[in-house]
Formats: sequence, structure tokens, C-alpha cells
Amino acid sequence: MIKAFVFDAYGTLFDVQSVADVTEQAFPGHGEIITQIWRMKQLEYSWLRSLMGDYRDFWTVTREALTYTLGVLGLSPTATLFDDIAEAYNRLAPYPDAVAALGGLSGVHRAILSNGSPQMLDPLVGGSALRDLIETTISVDEKRAFKPDPRAYELVEERLGVKPHEVIFVSSNGFDIAGAKRFGFRVARIARLPQAALAQEVAEEMTGALRPVTFYKALRTQEEALGYAPDFTVSSLADLSRLAVAA
Amino acid sequence: MIKAFVFDAYGTLFDVQSVADVTEQAFPGHGEIITQIWRMKQLEYSWLRSLMGDYRDFWTVTREALTYTLGVLGLSPTATLFDDIAEAYNRLAPYPDAVAALGGLSGVHRAILSNGSPQMLDPLVGGSALRDLIETTISVDEKRAFKPDPRAYELVEERLGVKPHEVIFVSSNGFDIAGAKRFGFRVARIARLPQAALAQEVAEEMTGALRPVTFYKALRTQEEALGYAPDFTVSSLADLSRLAVAA
Repeated sequence: MIKAFVFDAYGTLFDVQSVADVTEQAFPGHGEIITQIWRMKQLEYSWLRSLMGDYRDFWTVTREALTYTLGVLGLSPTATLFDDIAEAYNRLAPYPDAVAALGGLSGVHRAILSNGSPQMLDPLVGGSALRDLIETTISVDEKRAFKPDPRAYELVEERLGVKPHEVIFVSSNGFDIAGAKRFGFRVARIARLPQAALAQEVAEEMTGALRPVTFYKALRTQEEALGYAPDFTVSSLADLSRLAVAA
Repeated sequence: MIKAFVFDAYGTLFDVQSVADVTEQAFPGHGEIITQIWRMKQLEYSWLRSLMGDYRDFWTVTREALTYTLGVLGLSPTATLFDDIAEAYNRLAPYPDAVAALGGLSGVHRAILSNGSPQMLDPLVGGSALRDLIETTISVDEKRAFKPDPRAYELVEERLGVKPHEVIFVSSNGFDIAGAKRFGFRVARIARLPQAALAQEVAEEMTGALRPVTFYKALRTQEEALGYAPDFTVSSLADLSRLAVAA
């Protein structure tokens, strides 16, 4: 029996691409590439710091990734502009399907398990329309371990009192899907971009160059080949409500 | 006193871009994007498997990354073609400056410490002109941990009998530089692509799209913002010989 739906935040409930307005306004013409490299490096740094045994919270990670990104592009923000760009990560837009999807889940716990630090998640969730639809927002920070480290996923049982098999963990991030599945959750993958559509997009741009966002999509939006397939794959958060019954 | 130069293999002594002929021949027009996504996912999967506590050797990781890459692009190789592409990773070309650089280091240990499994490193090193210039090739495989996990770097002292501060660790990979530096080695970064040249390359392509290799370079060739700067930065392996004295 399913007792809880636990959601990834960045990329699943909140659109990480929604920083693009801020990055473009800060450095016109560079918005897209900043957005893509920043997100890629943010994830990479969370993994590398975990591997190096050198944890820093996700806010530090997010800022270090932005430092890298602007540095490789040869862009030099003032300290104020840098802070303004970084802060955009704490005001990400929820996906359009998030409110209705969360509202449609009744009789189960609805929680977030995120790499974000509490100082990021408080304004992100609290400042969004999802605020009253999420019962508990859990940050991995207290474990000092980022997903897909199993210690991060342990927080769900510790905080909600539900066993892994009683959870449907919802994510659109391949690494998170693999990690959650290996941990023992039932996992629903939000597949917003079908593989065929992505392949088509790549093919159309392949005359020589890809937009950075297309390269990003090719790296980050598809199911990983790590041997941990999700239990459910849906194309929208809106399709989740039927899983509580089906599972 | 410096007693050993220890080299990263993939990207430092051997050019990971040199699989491009094979990938392009296998899927004409797709060679470059296969090459870039494959390498990105190969590294990512090594980190994710470590974090998930689900180690597989680097040959498995390399093949899983290729599976992902061809999958997102909608390409369906025969089993034989898949094997042929994967095997290209075991015949990478050494960088042109590698032979002279290794030959110019005398009176010190010269070793490789690589994520590669022994079954990959044996043909790679043994089949190359570096064979007689490398004294010991160390695979992280026996630790079942990939760089930048500190356990991987411990192998240097265990196998060569030298203390971390007696080692100059040489890498062009940012994650490896950060990991080796945090571990305690003296670290030399091979910076083949100056930041200004990269920024210029990005700017020239920024009319809308980047070649995948440029996006790759922006993500993988520059020093990381992780707080672990290398002790030395040189633009070519050829510049290493002076470090043994300078250090």
C-alpha cells in the first residue's frame, strides 16, 4: 500500500530552466549557456564533494558552480550581480502541472526530498503555490550527503515513518531515479521529453551545432543506463494520481 | 623531494577525443556528439555508481555510458558494432607531447593511476608508445572506488612506497585535480586549453548554437571552483620536467 508520494524538487516540481530570464538579463546573449553549464556543474559538484568526503551545503555548491560557469565564459559579475543570479535558484517556477498534481493526491503523505539546503528550500517552496500542498520538505543537508547517496534517501522513513516500499518516489532526474530505485522505493519517472522527440531535436540541429539546451537535454532528461529502471514512467505530474491506486 | 610523477590516463596522457574516428565511422554525422556524450556519461556513471555504493568496473561503466549515448540519439547498433565502438576506448591515441615528456623525467618513479580497469589499461598502455616509459600502471579497480574518492589515491603510496607530498600528480581533469589536491599530493594541471581561448571559442559560436565539443570543453577542460587549486599549471606535458627540480 502506498502511504507517501515523495518528490524531488529541482527539475521535478520546479523548473531549473526558469533561471534563464535572470541569467540572460545579467549577461545578454549568454543566458542559455550560463543556465545549462550552471545546472550541470551544480550536480557535478554535489557528486564530487560527496565522493571527496568534503561536503558543503547545496547553497555553497550552487554558488561554486556559478563561479565556475561565469569563469569559463570569461564573464565578471559584480558581487551584487553574482548574488542576484545565484538567488534566482531560490525562486524557480513550479512546473505548470505541479499544483494540480499535488492537489490530486489525497490520503497519502506528500513530501519533498531535496538536495537543497533548508535556506534554499524555505524560500523556494514557501514562496510558491506548492506551499500548502506539501506536508513536509526534507533537506538532505542534515545527512551531509547528496542524492543518490543512500543516506539521503533514509530520511524519508526517518521523517515520515513509512517504509521504502510504501513510497512512490517521483523524479525526472535520471541519477535520482536510479538512486531511489536502488534504495528500495517504488519510483515514478516524469518523462517530460520523449526519447524520440529528443533524438529528432538533435537530428534537426545536427547540421553542425546544438543549442546548449539541447546538449543539456541529451545529458540530463533521459532514463539512465544504470540498471535501475523506474516502476512507472509518466509524461506529466498530472498522471501521478492514478499510481496511488495502481500501485 | 619529488620521488614520483603519477599520471592520470584518460584525457591527460591519452586523448579521449581520439575515439571520434570510430564513432563517426559507425554513425556518420553523429561522431562528434557520440564522442562528447559518451565521455560525459562515462565520468558521471563512475561518480554515481560510487555514490550509490554500487561499484562496477570501468569497462562496465564505459559500456553503460555508450548504451545511454546511443539510446538518447535513437541509434541502434548491432552487438558487434557496439563492441567495436566500445573497444575504441582501449586504443586511444597518446597526446603528442606524452612520449617526450615521460622520457624527460629521470630519477623519479613514473606511474599511471587510472579509473580504467586492468582489462582496459593493459591494451591501452601496452599497445602504445608509452609502454616502456611507464614503470607501473595502477588501476583503482582493486579499491572498488573511482577518483576522486580518496581510497583511489591511496594506491599510490601502497604501490610505489612514496608519501603524498613526494608525488607530483599530473592531470588535465578538473575533478581529478581537486581530488588529488585534497588528498595531499602536489598537483600539476595540464591546461591545454587556456580559459581565454575557450571563452573566445564559445563567443564565436554563440550566434545560437555550440558544437558539442565546445560545450564539452566548457564543462570539462577548465579548473574547477572547488577550492583545491593545483600547485602547478602547465600547458603541455612537455613542461613537466622542470617541475621535478622546481618542486
